Amino acid sequence: MKKIAVFTSGGDSPGMNACIRAVVRTGIYKGLEVYGIQRGYEGMIEGDIKRLYSHSVSNIVQRGGTMLKSARSEEFRTPEGRKKAYDNLKILGIEGLVAIGGDGTFTGAKLFFEEFGIPTVGCPGTIDNDIYGTDYTIGFDTAVNTALEAIDKIRDTAAAHDRIFFIEVMGRDAGFIAVESGIGGGAEFVMVPETQTDLKSVVKSLKNLRKTKTSSIIVVAEGDDLGNAEEIMQKVKTAIKDPEKEFKVTTLGHIQRGGKPTARDRVLASRCGMAAVEGLLSGKTNCMAGVMNQQVVYTPFGDCIGKPKPLIEDHLKLIDILSI
Amino acid sequence: MKKIAVFTSGGDSPGMNACIRAVVRTGIYKGLEVYGIQRGYEGMIEGDIKRLYSHSVSNIVQRGGTMLKSARSEEFRTPEGRKKAYDNLKILGIEGLVAIGGDGTFTGAKLFFEEFGIPTVGCPGTIDNDIYGTDYTIGFDTAVNTALEAIDKIRDTAAAHDRIFFIEVMGRDAGFIAVESGIGGGAEFVMVPETQTDLKSVVKSLKNLRKTKTSSIIVVAEGDDLGNAEEIMQKVKTAIKDPEKEFKVTTLGHIQRGGKPTARDRVLASRCGMAAVEGLLSGKTNCMAGVMNQQVVYTPFGDCIGKPKPLIEDHLKLIDILSI
Amino acid sequence: MKKIAVFTSGGDSPGMNACIRAVVRTGIYKGLEVYGIQRGYEGMIEGDIKRLYSHSVSNIVQRGGTMLKSARSEEFRTPEGRKKAYDNLKILGIEGLVAIGGDGTFTGAKLFFEEFGIPTVGCPGTIDNDIYGTDYTIGFDTAVNTALEAIDKIRDTAAAHDRIFFIEVMGRDAGFIAVESGIGGGAEFVMVPETQTDLKSVVKSLKNLRKTKTSSIIVVAEGDDLGNAEEIMQKVKTAIKDPEKEFKVTTLGHIQRGGKPTARDRVLASRCGMAAVEGLLSGKTNCMAGVMNQQVVYTPFGDCIGKPKPLIEDHLKLIDILSI
Amino acid sequence: MKKIAVFTSGGDSPGMNACIRAVVRTGIYKGLEVYGIQRGYEGMIEGDIKRLYSHSVSNIVQRGGTMLKSARSEEFRTPEGRKKAYDNLKILGIEGLVAIGGDGTFTGAKLFFEEFGIPTVGCPGTIDNDIYGTDYTIGFDTAVNTALEAIDKIRDTAAAHDRIFFIEVMGRDAGFIAVESGIGGGAEFVMVPETQTDLKSVVKSLKNLRKTKTSSIIVVAEGDDLGNAEEIMQKVKTAIKDPEKEFKVTTLGHIQRGGKPTARDRVLASRCGMAAVEGLLSGKTNCMAGVMNQQVVYTPFGDCIGKPKPLIEDHLKLIDILSI
Repeated sequence: MKKIAVFTSGGDSPGMNACIRAVVRTGIYKGLEVYGIQRGYEGMIEGDIKRLYSHSVSNIVQRGGTMLKSARSEEFRTPEGRKKAYDNLKILGIEGLVAIGGDGTFTGAKLFFEEFGIPTVGCPGTIDNDIYGTDYTIGFDTAVNTALEAIDKIRDTAAAHDRIFFIEVMGRDAGFIAVESGIGGGAEFVMVPETQTDLKSVVKSLKNLRKTKTSSIIVVAEGDDLGNAEEIMQKVKTAIKDPEKEFKVTTLGHIQRGGKPTARDRVLASRCGMAAVEGLLSGKTNCMAGVMNQQVVYTPFGDCIGKPKPLIEDHLKLIDILSI
Repeated sequence: MKKIAVFTSGGDSPGMNACIRAVVRTGIYKGLEVYGIQRGYEGMIEGDIKRLYSHSVSNIVQRGGTMLKSARSEEFRTPEGRKKAYDNLKILGIEGLVAIGGDGTFTGAKLFFEEFGIPTVGCPGTIDNDIYGTDYTIGFDTAVNTALEAIDKIRDTAAAHDRIFFIEVMGRDAGFIAVESGIGGGAEFVMVPETQTDLKSVVKSLKNLRKTKTSSIIVVAEGDDLGNAEEIMQKVKTAIKDPEKEFKVTTLGHIQRGGKPTARDRVLASRCGMAAVEGLLSGKTNCMAGVMNQQVVYTPFGDCIGKPKPLIEDHLKLIDILSI
Repeated sequence: MKKIAVFTSGGDSPGMNACIRAVVRTGIYKGLEVYGIQRGYEGMIEGDIKRLYSHSVSNIVQRGGTMLKSARSEEFRTPEGRKKAYDNLKILGIEGLVAIGGDGTFTGAKLFFEEFGIPTVGCPGTIDNDIYGTDYTIGFDTAVNTALEAIDKIRDTAAAHDRIFFIEVMGRDAGFIAVESGIGGGAEFVMVPETQTDLKSVVKSLKNLRKTKTSSIIVVAEGDDLGNAEEIMQKVKTAIKDPEKEFKVTTLGHIQRGGKPTARDRVLASRCGMAAVEGLLSGKTNCMAGVMNQQVVYTPFGDCIGKPKPLIEDHLKLIDILSI
Repeated sequence: MKKIAVFTSGGDSPGMNACIRAVVRTGIYKGLEVYGIQRGYEGMIEGDIKRLYSHSVSNIVQRGGTMLKSARSEEFRTPEGRKKAYDNLKILGIEGLVAIGGDGTFTGAKLFFEEFGIPTVGCPGTIDNDIYGTDYTIGFDTAVNTALEAIDKIRDTAAAHDRIFFIEVMGRDAGFIAVESGIGGGAEFVMVPETQTDLKSVVKSLKNLRKTKTSSIIVVAEGDDLGNAEEIMQKVKTAIKDPEKEFKVTTLGHIQRGGKPTARDRVLASRCGMAAVEGLLSGKTNCMAGVMNQQVVYTPFGDCIGKPKPLIEDHLKLIDILSI
């Protein structure tokens, strides 16, 4: 293998740049030429690919976003689109790919590998942490800390006004961000897609809490079964029927995707990037390089996408205990 | 004067605690007894007032929110409510008041002083900066920096995806937060209540910008004449008619009120708090202690509430020039 | 078991408060009375112990330092001191202890248990991460991020002036902080106690690097075998003999111990605190509750203190590769 | 005037990039060609000058350091050096200069203008705030906030261990950083070059304070008349003679120069940059564009360098009062 290419795809996450940097420098260190593909599969189809050098990735380890940009590609879903992409890689002599992204990215990479056989190793770049095969995904730690800082700020104002705040964090299918920012932020409740949210018991507990606490924070993952934060607030407000109590909603939104990556995300991203290149060189393909139990592990794309990744039991227990 | 009391009222703002601390310690330094009234006018009516000592305000200079809590009081709008409040102060022998808050707080304080004659000096505690008689209000600098950090984060993800982002910041009647966070964040447009927003020219400029820039940030003060961020986004989207372009909205909301105060806010808060007590002792009343041109200035409550505080001309110019 | 007590000892670390909170609330949740001992073993000897309630630990999860304070106790090293401590616990009816700290704390706890038999479970509270029996210690993640932020800032000024910066981080016997902040900060070299630092090869590499890079960052753990940062800088400067090159040293010092704990530290601290209480209730003693491979693990104090905890191999490789 | 050039010189300060950006975009907006000179006067002598476009300064408003780099130039102190610099500007047809920096920068600019007559306007870029003709300098607000964050962190650990901490901040000739970070951080003492530090009275006060406070923070400007922080600590320790009390020193050092600029610094930098270009176009020269009383003011270089800028009286009073 002489030439490899790297790209980012799907929603961006903090640490993607650190991962790109590690792929580029590990590749060069091992004697490879490394190329960067712009805007994920879209740039692969358009041939928007250029050589990257060691200095191309200087001074990016601390930056959010992705220097290679990211996009969704409808065309890559078609056989014609994938053929174009393959032809572009062929022309340049690219013999291996590193795909940084989440579910959708790996689904595409799996299909592409099965059709055209270019060795491909993935790196788990998504803030949601919902990828099997790695304890944490790149960007998750930063997103949790961003959510936590917001919760810390809102608690100041919640306490000053004796309010009940519903804070919506990202997580359409997974409650990892909600759970860890909820524990860290001292939330009274955390509502996640993985468990059924029981409105009656929430309302009962909130009424009980009011005897000892004047303000409360409720963290809601956007994909909770009871609705989004605004909807849940309305339901709770209707059920509590206390005209003197103020209920407020804050939806954190896109600030959770950006920002300087934390140390943990930079180190994880660097390690996964190095492991992806080492994996390609040792014959790995159609799999993702993750870190489990402090060791690099390669997991087939099929498992990364298909296997469920449960929340940590202890974390759910903690929320109950710590809110007393 | 032997006994004074301090309270916070209206929306909380970062730095209120630093201000309370300065009032308490300056009072004690000058030989006074200082009392804290809980939850603003509400606590004054209920007699929720207690003695504060030097150590009562230890380790709060860096905290957001307000240790004295804040609330809106419907009852204080009635003559009966104000009479109750006065009686409570009388019983304790309170001879002077320091009122930390904004418009509403000073309106109440003015009325109360005119009716009962207890000397009162205000401190400008509001994130909106819309109080005449001080260059900056306590909390404004922190709110701008919080908004700016959010904009910095969103720019990462906007750039990664070539998106147009509408970011709504606080400011129902005043565009100060929008303007300063917009300049600092390198926003392409800033929409504020003070100036008429021309949809056609925005759309035209956005189309022009697209030749050189792939992503744009538009900062919207919540009180803009064209609507809130969501509404403006819909109008712009409809007018631009580009199915490939993604338009996103993020409403920063209550995170702008909380958080550790910045150095500037802590220093300003400390200075206003000291000046309020010194003012009371030198016979000032019915006025606010602010800082203009680096000097302490006492401005009648009537002017603080009634006089307009215009945006800085140069700042509006900067937005136009810097977005090219 | 009806009554337990918790204390912090040794150098403070961010997250200790979150751990205390978890101990207190888990204890109460399980029907126990929980006591707090001030200033570690010193307060145990002096009988400075008081009951803690759920509200005693409100609003501390986000605070650095330790609300129970910490101290070194010479007297606890004597049999008389330990007897006094035991008597105080006896009087209050304390039947179990949670000891939050590092090496020294656990050495004391082991001895105390062996002499007096009061069941004791530890929680790993130290920024250095040098405790066997847990993947990470409470406070380590925050310390790394604090060091990293400092490195990010110094890189700005290093790049502006083409300088070589030596940054000393904490770590008398362990290089964990140096390694993770070095990878995250894009350091050109990281010098740690665990590996021999070869002056000649550093100088040679620095000369090579200068062909492509104009500024360099070298992270030095305070306990490196070649000396502290100032000493190493002098050696390198002497060896390089380039009068035009500026060499600077920054010693981060105590800022690494303080600050708001990160999400990771708050969650880990909460989990260890809960596990310590659950451990006591299920008969565990003379051991530490840590988290390995995402699971709670109880490790005998003897092993925590005695067994070495090596750096992660991949991390050392990353530093070499990423600095090209 | 058709062509202007901009450069940064002396110690770098956060906001310099925002200032460069404003100079470039204002210049282009006004129809000028704008050039960037690398490494200050050094690059002027070497002819290291290149054209800057609007996109050259994209995405730098939030970065610390200076994209044009900075250096000290011995050669510029010689008539031959300055002649070379002039010739390089002449060849390119540069008709105006914007010099971003402090004392040394303006001293050089004044001399250069007097010898060669190229119109030059300065912008106050230094963290020390010791330039007459502007209320604040570019970078000061960021430096104060960086120092303040460090003080907040150290207070956590000081309180946990009942220690006395001496924190040294930048300020060889001026105490602005020390004073504002000291007020904001709740320091018990602040020692600055502008006032004589009386060892006896400090020791006496520290002994008094110990009756009510167990830990203390003392902020020392590096240029204090009593010595640096380490020296002062030794003197105080010797005088207090309390073997049980721990005295610690932290020198913040270069972290104060770097980091993302605050909102205030970005806005000030942008405004000064715009004003410098507008000044050049309206015939201003040999002067600095600063902001006083919220208005742009042009002050002759001679005054900027020569006139003293006193500390704010109220701030010194605050330190005394707030430490009780």
